[in-house]
Amino acid sequence: MNKKICGSLADKLHSRGFGRRKGKCVELSWEEMAYLAEKKIIDEDFSDVVGKASSSISNFDIRYLAYRDLRDRGYVLSVGNGYFKGRKNYAMDFYPISDMDEFSVDDMRNKEFPLILAVVDFDGETTYYLVELINPEGKYHILPEEKIDLEFHGNRAFSFEGIKSLEERTYGKDEGTWGHLSLLEVSYLAEKGILDNTPIMESDIYLVYRDLRNRGLIVKSGFKYGTHFRVYERSMDEHSKYLVHLISKREEIQKISRAVRVAHGVKKNLLLAYPDNGDILYFKFSWIRP
Amino acid sequence: MNKKICGSLADKLHSRGFGRRKGKCVELSWEEMAYLAEKKIIDEDFSDVVGKASSSISNFDIRYLAYRDLRDRGYVLSVGNGYFKGRKNYAMDFYPISDMDEFSVDDMRNKEFPLILAVVDFDGETTYYLVELINPEGKYHILPEEKIDLEFHGNRAFSFEGIKSLEERTYGKDEGTWGHLSLLEVSYLAEKGILDNTPIMESDIYLVYRDLRNRGLIVKSGFKYGTHFRVYERSMDEHSKYLVHLISKREEIQKISRAVRVAHGVKKNLLLAYPDNGDILYFKFSWIRP
Repeated sequence: MNKKICGSLADKLHSRGFGRRKGKCVELSWEEMAYLAEKKIIDEDFSDVVGKASSSISNFDIRYLAYRDLRDRGYVLSVGNGYFKGRKNYAMDFYPISDMDEFSVDDMRNKEFPLILAVVDFDGETTYYLVELINPEGKYHILPEEKIDLEFHGNRAFSFEGIKSLEERTYGKDEGTWGHLSLLEVSYLAEKGILDNTPIMESDIYLVYRDLRNRGLIVKSGFKYGTHFRVYERSMDEHSKYLVHLISKREEIQKISRAVRVAHGVKKNLLLAYPDNGDILYFKFSWIRP
Repeated sequence: MNKKICGSLADKLHSRGFGRRKGKCVELSWEEMAYLAEKKIIDEDFSDVVGKASSSISNFDIRYLAYRDLRDRGYVLSVGNGYFKGRKNYAMDFYPISDMDEFSVDDMRNKEFPLILAVVDFDGETTYYLVELINPEGKYHILPEEKIDLEFHGNRAFSFEGIKSLEERTYGKDEGTWGHLSLLEVSYLAEKGILDNTPIMESDIYLVYRDLRNRGLIVKSGFKYGTHFRVYERSMDEHSKYLVHLISKREEIQKISRAVRVAHGVKKNLLLAYPDNGDILYFKFSWIRP
């Protein structure tokens, strides 16, 4: 049972965003109680509150550390069931999670975007990720025209003529007297009718490649950044805009944190792509410091 | 069967580091044959060589693209079985692998360090990682002295007194009137006799934590960087020197690439830690551009 506070203290607390109004009283969540007890604004023993809260909520330590960090930064938050509702700059839901937790696509389905993940690490520090669901769009819809002869060796297609005209249209690598394409590129060009007699990949990674290309984006390997793809919006003369990584239904939040950090360091946007019944969901993750 | 070349061409080739000497002849590997055929130095059809080589070596495309990239950069390499032997600046073994391959600790056991992984991505571009086996050592061997009372809630230990003296000795987080420690810290301090009646973790992650601490290093969460730990050599007033990540016996090379990229971006060294029969192996990965 959470605590109810009535009278003038209730008004004061409510004006500062604490508690839920119930007539002349406010009902406090465990996070709020602990915070107000720690700051000695209500007459409760902090250690008692932490003990009781922890026995009724399994991840109270995580929730409290995130709540406290935000409050101490001056944020006014109201507390929902497992999330905090922000105001002003971040008028969205904050979800406190542990660095040992996973990012679950299914958990995200019924959520309102944008949202913020507040990840508490084992030192008790909180890192914030703004998560948006977006539809990336590019401006590059040009396809090669000429058909070429290919030989398949390993995971690659070889042409023993140059493929300069393909490379100019962002497909394959021309090496002068010969050239090579990845199976992703080959599959896509085959689906578009540019190549004949070519097997078409059926893997999730190809579904993401195809979807990005269909959206007018130029897709190249993201290996140097540790992601599946780097993606250009208009032309390869510009810097790539997105790093795109195919994810499974559940991913370690730590793995995502690493990808966000890489993207942040090179000033690109990180998109996590999840193939979902014919569509691809793109979760954009940004590291923020609220 | 690889090709044998004799006479004056053999001398010329050998002086440029191609082939293995057999009397007045040299024996060429498939990579060498393809390279010399492509450059029209030997009288062989490049596409024929690629076709034959691919049917006798499963990853010939990967091996050739890496070999060619290095040769085109001016490196003289001799070809061993599945690796290239470098000279001068990089007088070590280069192992060509695909971006879809895994890093396998067992594969590394019989190798000579340092070595270089030459990772070929689906665009055919090669990224190079210098891999060393190292013994990280720090200078911080101070332990806290005072015993404290702890309560365990969630994955954290709480003290309802301040723990400033612990924090000053790089353990836990003091929040003024209270403090908290991670279970890693608590386990370590319990093993060192500073805490009583405390469960000691038995997971691999703790084995790495303990080993790093025993080596005189200060260990904090690496979550912001997407790794398990960030590690300081002397003091937390300096920048952390290492990012350390616990790995399994086999890891996607892509996941490692991401960690290397983060570490590179923040000028830290990446160590992949593998608990191996009581010891911890530390593989240091650096991104190089030979």
